[in-house]
Amino acid sequence: MLMYPGMTVMDLIGPHCMFGALMGAKIFLVAKSLDPVTSDSGVTITPTATFENCPRELTVLFTPGGTDGTLAAAVDTETRAFMADRGARAKYVTSVCSGSLILGAAGLLKGYKATSHWSVRHVLAGFGATPTDARVVRDRNRITGAGVTAGLDFGLTMVAELRDRVYAECCQLMSEYDPDPPFHAGSMKTAPAEVKAPMVQLLAEFVKKAEALAAAKKALTDVMV
Amino acid sequence: MLMYPGMTVMDLIGPHCMFGALMGAKIFLVAKSLDPVTSDSGVTITPTATFENCPRELTVLFTPGGTDGTLAAAVDTETRAFMADRGARAKYVTSVCSGSLILGAAGLLKGYKATSHWSVRHVLAGFGATPTDARVVRDRNRITGAGVTAGLDFGLTMVAELRDRVYAECCQLMSEYDPDPPFHAGSMKTAPAEVKAPMVQLLAEFVKKAEALAAAKKALTDVMV
Repeated sequence: MLMYPGMTVMDLIGPHCMFGALMGAKIFLVAKSLDPVTSDSGVTITPTATFENCPRELTVLFTPGGTDGTLAAAVDTETRAFMADRGARAKYVTSVCSGSLILGAAGLLKGYKATSHWSVRHVLAGFGATPTDARVVRDRNRITGAGVTAGLDFGLTMVAELRDRVYAECCQLMSEYDPDPPFHAGSMKTAPAEVKAPMVQLLAEFVKKAEALAAAKKALTDVMV
Repeated sequence: MLMYPGMTVMDLIGPHCMFGALMGAKIFLVAKSLDPVTSDSGVTITPTATFENCPRELTVLFTPGGTDGTLAAAVDTETRAFMADRGARAKYVTSVCSGSLILGAAGLLKGYKATSHWSVRHVLAGFGATPTDARVVRDRNRITGAGVTAGLDFGLTMVAELRDRVYAECCQLMSEYDPDPPFHAGSMKTAPAEVKAPMVQLLAEFVKKAEALAAAKKALTDVMV
């Protein structure tokens, strides 16, 4: 599980909550160095492995999303090299939220269906992916989750894939995942207009930057082809 | 937000995901010292305040749950003193999952309806509370959430309480909280028998210890009365 400054910590902890229930699973929280990493909301987590000492063969490669920190990670040479290297051999290449921008920037989504946070899902097309609107999207060994809290649905899907359905159901009962949101504004399909408008505006600059990143990647790929 | 060794990190991060979206909110991750705290699943987080330097007047006092680490925190003299002190003056006294055992042990639930992780909800009666089966339970200024992932529903409820409904809906859209669990085993009411039985067994020892803690607290209270 990749970590980087400015990541959204819930993107990481949702899946970790489910992966952590896998008896015998070894989870590595991987960053550039072992220096603690601070999330976009100020939660500081200590990595357990570095790009250098992270095992070369992984069952699951995962990245969380975020906003500016995610774009910084997506253009960072070492981070992209790490993701491209482990992603080429991992059994599953996965993300939650705008983490799929990092997968895209590392060249890991070309020709695959994938999803992201609703605000930047369309941007995945710039990386050669097919943006797909679903809570969890699977295309061969690429499994991507939608925004932030979709990490729980993604995590359960992964547990069922790695073990079996009953095992995943046990994780669901243990984490009492019987959601009951007090409101129904969690999707662009259901949120009231007065909720959608300010959130679209709040993310407008991030979306522009993400689009620019994808355009630059495409231009680079076109030159290289 | 209290932190202690062995806490369930998702209990903390679910609400933090929603609180963190409150413009201007100051969130303190409070522990005995500033030494990093490791969760039951091996996630190590750096506190931002100690029992000593945490502000005395808090809007929200919150504690996450866990298993053995939670019981250790519930019987720890300093932790109980901190919770009782801040809880006596906080505008809201809150928890997610078995964190309500810590509130109970600190004497903060006597005469209040409250909930907990399904496995130990009944134990709250030993602290003078009325165990109540709901995702989020409110009784005056005590607001408690059910197990682990209920922290998201709890968090949104708190945001609506602290600001307003539209603000909470904005947080819900931003975190794309439009849950779609792949299975329906998140509650003792819906989980299949072959899922319930092993999970009840897995938690049996923890439940016994929690019951013993509540019995000891009751005996102590009876003696003191």
